[in-house]
Amino acid sequence: MRTLITDGIVVTAADTVPADILVEDEVIVAVGRNLGPADRTIDAAGRYVFPGGVDEHTHFGLPVSGTVSQPWETESVAAALGGTTTVVDFAMQQRGGSLLAGIRAWQEKAAGASAVDYGFHITVTDLHPEAIREIPRVVEEGVVTLKCLMAYKGSVMVDDDTLFRALQEGHRHGALVMIHCENGDVVAALQGQLVAAGKTEPRYHAASRPPAVEAEATNRAIVLAELAGAPLLIVHVTSADALDHIRAAQGRGHPVYAETCPQYVTLTADDLARPDFAGARYVLSPALRSAAHHEALWSGLSSGSLQTAGSDHCAFTLEQKALGRDDFRRIPNGIPAAEERLPLLYSEGVASGRLSLNRFVDAVATAPARLMGLYPRKGTIAPGTDADLVIFNPEAEWIMGVATQHSGSDYSPWEGKPVRGAVETVLLRGEVIVEDGRYVGQLGQGQYIARRPFAG
Amino acid sequence: MRTLITDGIVVTAADTVPADILVEDEVIVAVGRNLGPADRTIDAAGRYVFPGGVDEHTHFGLPVSGTVSQPWETESVAAALGGTTTVVDFAMQQRGGSLLAGIRAWQEKAAGASAVDYGFHITVTDLHPEAIREIPRVVEEGVVTLKCLMAYKGSVMVDDDTLFRALQEGHRHGALVMIHCENGDVVAALQGQLVAAGKTEPRYHAASRPPAVEAEATNRAIVLAELAGAPLLIVHVTSADALDHIRAAQGRGHPVYAETCPQYVTLTADDLARPDFAGARYVLSPALRSAAHHEALWSGLSSGSLQTAGSDHCAFTLEQKALGRDDFRRIPNGIPAAEERLPLLYSEGVASGRLSLNRFVDAVATAPARLMGLYPRKGTIAPGTDADLVIFNPEAEWIMGVATQHSGSDYSPWEGKPVRGAVETVLLRGEVIVEDGRYVGQLGQGQYIARRPFAG
Amino acid sequence: MRTLITDGIVVTAADTVPADILVEDEVIVAVGRNLGPADRTIDAAGRYVFPGGVDEHTHFGLPVSGTVSQPWETESVAAALGGTTTVVDFAMQQRGGSLLAGIRAWQEKAAGASAVDYGFHITVTDLHPEAIREIPRVVEEGVVTLKCLMAYKGSVMVDDDTLFRALQEGHRHGALVMIHCENGDVVAALQGQLVAAGKTEPRYHAASRPPAVEAEATNRAIVLAELAGAPLLIVHVTSADALDHIRAAQGRGHPVYAETCPQYVTLTADDLARPDFAGARYVLSPALRSAAHHEALWSGLSSGSLQTAGSDHCAFTLEQKALGRDDFRRIPNGIPAAEERLPLLYSEGVASGRLSLNRFVDAVATAPARLMGLYPRKGTIAPGTDADLVIFNPEAEWIMGVATQHSGSDYSPWEGKPVRGAVETVLLRGEVIVEDGRYVGQLGQGQYIARRPFAG
Amino acid sequence: MRTLITDGIVVTAADTVPADILVEDEVIVAVGRNLGPADRTIDAAGRYVFPGGVDEHTHFGLPVSGTVSQPWETESVAAALGGTTTVVDFAMQQRGGSLLAGIRAWQEKAAGASAVDYGFHITVTDLHPEAIREIPRVVEEGVVTLKCLMAYKGSVMVDDDTLFRALQEGHRHGALVMIHCENGDVVAALQGQLVAAGKTEPRYHAASRPPAVEAEATNRAIVLAELAGAPLLIVHVTSADALDHIRAAQGRGHPVYAETCPQYVTLTADDLARPDFAGARYVLSPALRSAAHHEALWSGLSSGSLQTAGSDHCAFTLEQKALGRDDFRRIPNGIPAAEERLPLLYSEGVASGRLSLNRFVDAVATAPARLMGLYPRKGTIAPGTDADLVIFNPEAEWIMGVATQHSGSDYSPWEGKPVRGAVETVLLRGEVIVEDGRYVGQLGQGQYIARRPFAG
Repeated sequence: MRTLITDGIVVTAADTVPADILVEDEVIVAVGRNLGPADRTIDAAGRYVFPGGVDEHTHFGLPVSGTVSQPWETESVAAALGGTTTVVDFAMQQRGGSLLAGIRAWQEKAAGASAVDYGFHITVTDLHPEAIREIPRVVEEGVVTLKCLMAYKGSVMVDDDTLFRALQEGHRHGALVMIHCENGDVVAALQGQLVAAGKTEPRYHAASRPPAVEAEATNRAIVLAELAGAPLLIVHVTSADALDHIRAAQGRGHPVYAETCPQYVTLTADDLARPDFAGARYVLSPALRSAAHHEALWSGLSSGSLQTAGSDHCAFTLEQKALGRDDFRRIPNGIPAAEERLPLLYSEGVASGRLSLNRFVDAVATAPARLMGLYPRKGTIAPGTDADLVIFNPEAEWIMGVATQHSGSDYSPWEGKPVRGAVETVLLRGEVIVEDGRYVGQLGQGQYIARRPFAG
Repeated sequence: MRTLITDGIVVTAADTVPADILVEDEVIVAVGRNLGPADRTIDAAGRYVFPGGVDEHTHFGLPVSGTVSQPWETESVAAALGGTTTVVDFAMQQRGGSLLAGIRAWQEKAAGASAVDYGFHITVTDLHPEAIREIPRVVEEGVVTLKCLMAYKGSVMVDDDTLFRALQEGHRHGALVMIHCENGDVVAALQGQLVAAGKTEPRYHAASRPPAVEAEATNRAIVLAELAGAPLLIVHVTSADALDHIRAAQGRGHPVYAETCPQYVTLTADDLARPDFAGARYVLSPALRSAAHHEALWSGLSSGSLQTAGSDHCAFTLEQKALGRDDFRRIPNGIPAAEERLPLLYSEGVASGRLSLNRFVDAVATAPARLMGLYPRKGTIAPGTDADLVIFNPEAEWIMGVATQHSGSDYSPWEGKPVRGAVETVLLRGEVIVEDGRYVGQLGQGQYIARRPFAG
Repeated sequence: MRTLITDGIVVTAADTVPADILVEDEVIVAVGRNLGPADRTIDAAGRYVFPGGVDEHTHFGLPVSGTVSQPWETESVAAALGGTTTVVDFAMQQRGGSLLAGIRAWQEKAAGASAVDYGFHITVTDLHPEAIREIPRVVEEGVVTLKCLMAYKGSVMVDDDTLFRALQEGHRHGALVMIHCENGDVVAALQGQLVAAGKTEPRYHAASRPPAVEAEATNRAIVLAELAGAPLLIVHVTSADALDHIRAAQGRGHPVYAETCPQYVTLTADDLARPDFAGARYVLSPALRSAAHHEALWSGLSSGSLQTAGSDHCAFTLEQKALGRDDFRRIPNGIPAAEERLPLLYSEGVASGRLSLNRFVDAVATAPARLMGLYPRKGTIAPGTDADLVIFNPEAEWIMGVATQHSGSDYSPWEGKPVRGAVETVLLRGEVIVEDGRYVGQLGQGQYIARRPFAG
Repeated sequence: MRTLITDGIVVTAADTVPADILVEDEVIVAVGRNLGPADRTIDAAGRYVFPGGVDEHTHFGLPVSGTVSQPWETESVAAALGGTTTVVDFAMQQRGGSLLAGIRAWQEKAAGASAVDYGFHITVTDLHPEAIREIPRVVEEGVVTLKCLMAYKGSVMVDDDTLFRALQEGHRHGALVMIHCENGDVVAALQGQLVAAGKTEPRYHAASRPPAVEAEATNRAIVLAELAGAPLLIVHVTSADALDHIRAAQGRGHPVYAETCPQYVTLTADDLARPDFAGARYVLSPALRSAAHHEALWSGLSSGSLQTAGSDHCAFTLEQKALGRDDFRRIPNGIPAAEERLPLLYSEGVASGRLSLNRFVDAVATAPARLMGLYPRKGTIAPGTDADLVIFNPEAEWIMGVATQHSGSDYSPWEGKPVRGAVETVLLRGEVIVEDGRYVGQLGQGQYIARRPFAG
C-alpha cells in the first residue's frame, strides 16, 4: 500500500520545504518530488505537513481525589483530533507496591482502548529495595522514564532521599527522571492555613502554591540531579522564576530538560477567580500564573531552554470538579489539553510571531520524541520513520470551546478563544485516522511502543 | 568604683579614635579626654580597645555522637581569653519534648560555671502544638532565637514543614530563626554509599557533604523565609555557592542575615586528608572547603553580606574523636574555636588587608549583639553600655597551637599557625577577667542575659 | 570655650545611645555622662544628635547651558539649614586646560562665600600629558577625587581611553575616580532623533536616557576600573539595572562604591510629564525613573551596596529652566536638594521603616566622609573630631515647599510633600550656625578642607 | 543529470536517518529509498552525509598590517577540502567611502577565483549620510549583513554612535549587524603600556586584550541592540564572561545570536607563549583564552546559546607573521581555519561527546545559512535545496598539520593534532569538487549568492 501526500509544505524541527511524502504501509520511504505512482494520493496543497504530535504528558483514566479522570476511549480520540499520534501516560506505583504491577495496571486500561500509539512512564511513590531491583526490567519493557513528585503531601509526594536515589538508579539503568517541582510541605502548610481561615474558594488554590514554591523545588531537583550526575526533565514549568534556575543549570552545562504546557502560556491566575465556582475549571498544579510569566515561557520555548510542550491532559467534568465546592483542596486537579495543544501553540506561538515554525514542530513532536526514547521512529518526517503525519491548514480560523472539543470533559478552559490554524488530516502509521477534522479511526488502532533508554 | 582606660585607640563598628574610656562599676560612662580621676587606671597606650566579643554560636557541654563536648568550666574560660565576653549557646529541645525544658537543662549546665555572660538559643527538633504554644514564653525569658537544622537526618533534622512553621511562628513572636543549611537526605544517602564502598576515613566526611548540598539548602531556607515573611539567620556559611544565594536574596530586599566562622576562611578540605586519622581533628559540619571559597567568604565579610563571624565552638579531645576511627560518621563533629576567633580574624582579616578594623569589630561584636538582641548593652563601646572591653595588642606575634590554648580539647586545628595580634586584657562588666593573657576571673562571674526580641 | 550638648540621643553609623557631648572650641572632647561644667549648654532632650552631614555632590555656581547655577552665597546656607556642614563641590578643568587652574577658579568662587566647610573634586575633561603630571600636586592640595563623565557628548564627556587612564593615574596617586555613568553617544543619538521628530518637551528628556543607557555605562565603568585595578565611586545611581551591575562587582570583591540621591528615591519620570512646562523643574541627569526603581535603591541603601546619598544639588530658577522651553536639551539640568537631603532621607527612609537610623547617618555623613578622605575629622561623633553636629527633632512634622527652602531657586521639586523630622540646631566646628531652624552664622565661616588620599 | 548518493546516513540539524539522496543537476529532488535510476551513483555506505558547510566568517585576500591575507585562489580550495561549500567574506568600506564601492572591490577579488559559492558582508567603518542612503541598495544586492568592530582603534574601530545607528538603520532595511566585541580604547591603552614596558613578544598580545575587554564590549553591543530594537550577531565569542552576557540577553528574550570558532575551543593562550616567536602563529583577535573557557563555549554550542561556528579564517605565512617580530601589535592577526573547521568540531565536539551530531550540522551549516539569509537554498539536505553535500567518514583517523592542509599559509596552528573523522567527497550544486580528499573542481565554479534579508 503506497500513499502519496502531495504538494504540502513539509515541516520538521530543522526544515521547511515544499515536498511530497511517499508512504509504504506504515513507514515513510521518501520525501521529494516525482516519487512515482501510489495507491492513494492525499492532496496537501496549501497545507503544512507536520510529524504527528508526541504528547509526553497525559493522565488518561487516573484515579485522583476520589474520582477518575476521563478515560482512554474518549481522551485518546481527542488527542488524535488535535494532531497527536503518540502519548506517554503516567502509570503509578502503589505505595509499597511494585513498579511493574503499576505498569501492568495501566497497560490494561489502554489495551484496545487507544486511538493513538502510546507508552508509559512509571510514577515512583516508594523506592523500596524491591522497587529498585525492578528498574532494569522496567526499562527493558520500554518504560524508560521515572516520575517523581515533590508535591501532593500525604499522597504521591516523595522525600529528597527517594528523589536522589531515583535520579541515581534511573541514570544507572538508562531511565530519565521527570520531576514535578513544588515544595509539597509548604503547599500543604499554606493550604491548611488558608482553609482554616475560611478561604476555601478555587482562587486560593493559586495562593497556596505561589511561584516561589515551584522555583525552590526546581532548584532543589536540579542540584540533586547534578549531585547524582543524572539528567532530568522538569515537567510543566510555569514561572519565570523556575525558568531562571533551569537556564542557569543549562549554562553550567548540566543536561537539564524542561517542559511547559499550553495552559501556562495562555491562561492566568485570574481565571481561578471566575465567579460561581467557575474558577474550579482552572484548578491544576502547579497553578496558573500572572500574564507576566507567559512571555518568559514563550521566550524559553523559543530559545530552547524549554525543549518541549506537553499537555498535562487530565480531564474532568464539572460534576467531578464540584467535589471541591467547599474546599479547593478537593477539586480534582487538571484540564483537557491534549486536543488543544497543537492548535493553541501554533496560533499563539507561530501565528503570533513568538515561535518559529520549526521550533513549534520541535516542541510538540521532535524534542519529546527524543526525550522519550521514541526518536527517530516518532517525532519527525524522514525516510524510515513511522508515517505519523498531520496535515494542518494554517489559514483556518475557528473558535475553540466545548462545542469543538472531543474530550469527555463537558467544558473547555478556552471557551470562546479565536484560534488560527487547524488539524485537518492525521495519519497513524500510514492509516488515516482523522479526515476533515473528523475521527475516522477505531479504538485499539493505537499500539504500545516500547521506548529506548535515554541517550542524551 | 571608677576605672579609666587611657591612651588606647577605641574601635567600634563605625569609628577608630584615640580616647580614654571611663567605667563606673559595670558600665561605661564616658569616652573622651580628661575624664577626671579614677580609682584604677589601665594603660592602653599602643593598644586597640575593642568591645568585648559576642560569640553567637557555641556548643558547650553538648551531648553528641555518644559523648559530650567540653564543658562550660573550661570552654567559657577559653572564650574569655580569646576576647569574648558573651556567648549564646544552643539549648536543645528533646524530640517530642518541651522547649522550656530544654532551656532549663542548659541553664543548669551554665549556672555558676561560666566565665563570661551568656544566653541561649533553643534548637527546635519537633514543633508540636504544645511547643508552638511555648514560644511566647520562651521569648519572654530572653531566648529570642530558634534554631532549625536541615541536616543530621534521624537526629535533629527537621522537615520543611517544621522549618516553615518555625519561621512563621518565630516571626510572629519576635524570635529570629537560625538555620543550619545542608540537605540532610542527600548527606545521609552519600554517607551510606561511601561507607558501603569502604570509604570510612575522615576525608570522606567532605565528600559526603559537598558545597552543592549546602547551597541547595541555603536557597530553600531563604525561599521559605520569604514565603513566611520572616527574617532569618543562616549560620556557618562555608561556600561561594551558598553566599551567592544569600547575596541574591539581600539584593531582592529580604532580611537575610548570615554568619561564617574562622575555620571556614582558614582551613581547607585538604586538612581532612591528613594521615593517621589526623583528619578527624577537622571533622565539622558543614565540611571544610577548598581554598577558592575563602576569598569569597572574606569578600562577603568585608562587604557585609555575611554580617557576623561566630565560632561554632564544639570541642572534643582526640580520644573523643577516635569514636569514629572506623566510620567517619561517628566522629563527633566540631573543633575548639571560641578562643581563636578574634585573633584569627584579626590576623588573617585585618592584618592581611582583607577586612577593615571597623568591620572586624562589627563582625565579632556589634553585628552579633544586634542580631541576638543584646545591643546596645553588649557589642559596642559607648556611654551606658556594659563595660565589656578587650585591650588588644596589634603588634604581638605568636604561634597558635595546643600550647597556647585553654580549651579542654587536647589539640589545636591551627597548630603552628603564626598569628599577629593578641588579646592582653579583658574586662567583663568592669571587672578585669584576663590580664596579660592570663585568666584572672572566677567561674560563675558570667551572668545569664535575657535577650530582647529581634527588631531588625 | 566649652559647650555641652545634653540629654540627646547620640547617633553614629554604629551606635544609638543617650549621652552628652562635650565640645572644646572646635572639637568634641568627650561623649558620656557627667562631663563637667561648660560655658554653654544646649539642651537636646528628645532630640537626635547626628554628625554634621557631608554632601559629596554639589554644584554651586556651575556654568552650564548658557547660564550659571545658584551660587555659594545662597546654596551653602541652604545646605547648612539642611544639616550639612561639609560639601564637596565639582571644580572643572577647561578642555585642554590645567587641572589646578580649574581648582583655583572654584576656590575663588567659594572663598569667603560659604556657610559650611568645603572641598573640591576636579572634573577631568581632557587627560593630556600635562594634566597627568599635575595629578600628584592636585592630590597634595587635598583634591583627592577625579570626576569623569561618560555622558554630555560634545561637552564634558570623555572617551574610554581617558576614563581608563584616569582610573590608572588616579589610583597611582591616591585619587578616587567618580563616574557619571550614561552612554553619551546613545543619549545624543536619541536626543537628536526625538527632537527631529518634534518631541521637544521635558518628558522626552527621560525618553532620551532610559535605564539601559545608565546600566551599560555602569558596567563599562566597573570593568574598566577592574582592569585598571582601581577603586571607583559611581555617582547618582538611579536604576535597579545599574545597581545589579554594582552588586555583582561587589560580590566579585572589587572595591566599587556608589551613591544615590534623594530625588531618585522620591520623584518619578511622571513628574517630567507635568503640564505647562512644569516638567522642566524635574529635568536632571540621569533622568528620574519609574517608582519600581525606588524600592531597589532603598534596598541598596539599606544593605550598603549604595554607600552614600549625596544631593547632586544644582539649583536653577524657573527663568533659567525656561531656556529649554523649545528644546528639552537646553533646559539646565539640576534641582536644589542639599537642604532637603537629610529631612527627605530621614522621613522617607528612617521614619518609613526602609532604613535604620545608623545606616541613615552612615549614608549622609560617615560613608561620604570616609570616601572623601574627610574621616575621622568629619562624618562622626567621637572624641577628637570636628564638632560638626546636627540636633534633629524626629517628631516634627512639616510640609516641604518653596516657602520652607532657602536655595536661590524659586521652586521646590517636592512642593507640598509632608515630611517627618526637622533640623533644629547645627554646629560647625563648635559654632552654632543654625538655631531653631534659622541661619545664624555668617558667610565665610566655612573653611576649605584639604582632604586625605583615598585609603579604602 | 541524475546523481544518486546511496546508503549513507543523512544528517541534518534535526534528523539522522539512513537514506539515499537523489540529485538532479544542481538540486536535491528526493531523500529516501528506491529513488530510481541515476546517471551516476556515489556510494556513501558507512559514511555520514552532511549539508555542505556554510562558513559565515572568512577573510580571503584581506589587506591588513601592511600585507594581504592569503587569497581566494588557495583559501577557497582549502575551504572546499574542509567540507565548506559556501563562504561569506568581509568586504570593507574605505573610511569616508562608499559601501557599494567596498562590495565591488571584493567582488572583483572573488570573481572567477572561488572554488565555493560565496557572498559578502560589508564592514562599516564610517556611517556618513551617503553610506546610510546606500543601505537599501546594498541589501538589494544580497549583502544583508553589516559588520562593525568595537576594536582596532585608529583603523576600523567605530564609536558607539556609529554602532547604534548601524543597528537602527540595518534593522530598518533588513540587514543583520555583526559585531566584533572588544573595547578598543582599553586594548590600545594596554598595548601602548606593554610595549612601552618592553613587552613586545607575542604572548603580550593576550595580555593586551583580556576576557573582560571582550565581555564589556559584548554587553555594550547587546544593550545598544536592545535600545535599537535590533537583532545582532556577535562574532567570535571566546570567553565564558562574554557568553554570560549573551545568555542573559537571550533569557530576556532579545534576539541575540552568537558565533564561536574552532580555535577558541581548541587552542589556548599558552600557545602564544611558545618560544622562538612561534607564538606569533597564534596571534588572532580576540586572543586565545585559558582552557577553562573551552568547556563553557562547548556548553554554549551544545545548548544553542552559541548558534554558529565560523572559522574567522585569515591566513598568513610565517614571513608575513614576522612583520611583528619586534612588536606584537604589528603581527598580522589571523590563522587558517576554514579547512579545519568541520573536522575539528566533529572530532573535538561530536566524537568527544560534547556536541550531538545534529547540533554539529546545525552549527556548521544550518544555523549560519539561516542567519546569513542563505536558507533553505544552503545549509540543509532537503528536496529543492542546492545539492551541496559532504560525505564524511566518521571512522577515519589522521594527524592534522601543514602537510595535510591546503591554505597558502605555511604552518598549521594544530600541527600534530590527532583528528577523528574526515571529509572524503564534496559536491557543490551537484558537481563533485572533492573526491577522496582531493580537490577535483575548478576555480570559478563558485558563484556569488545574493542573500535574502534577515527574517529572524
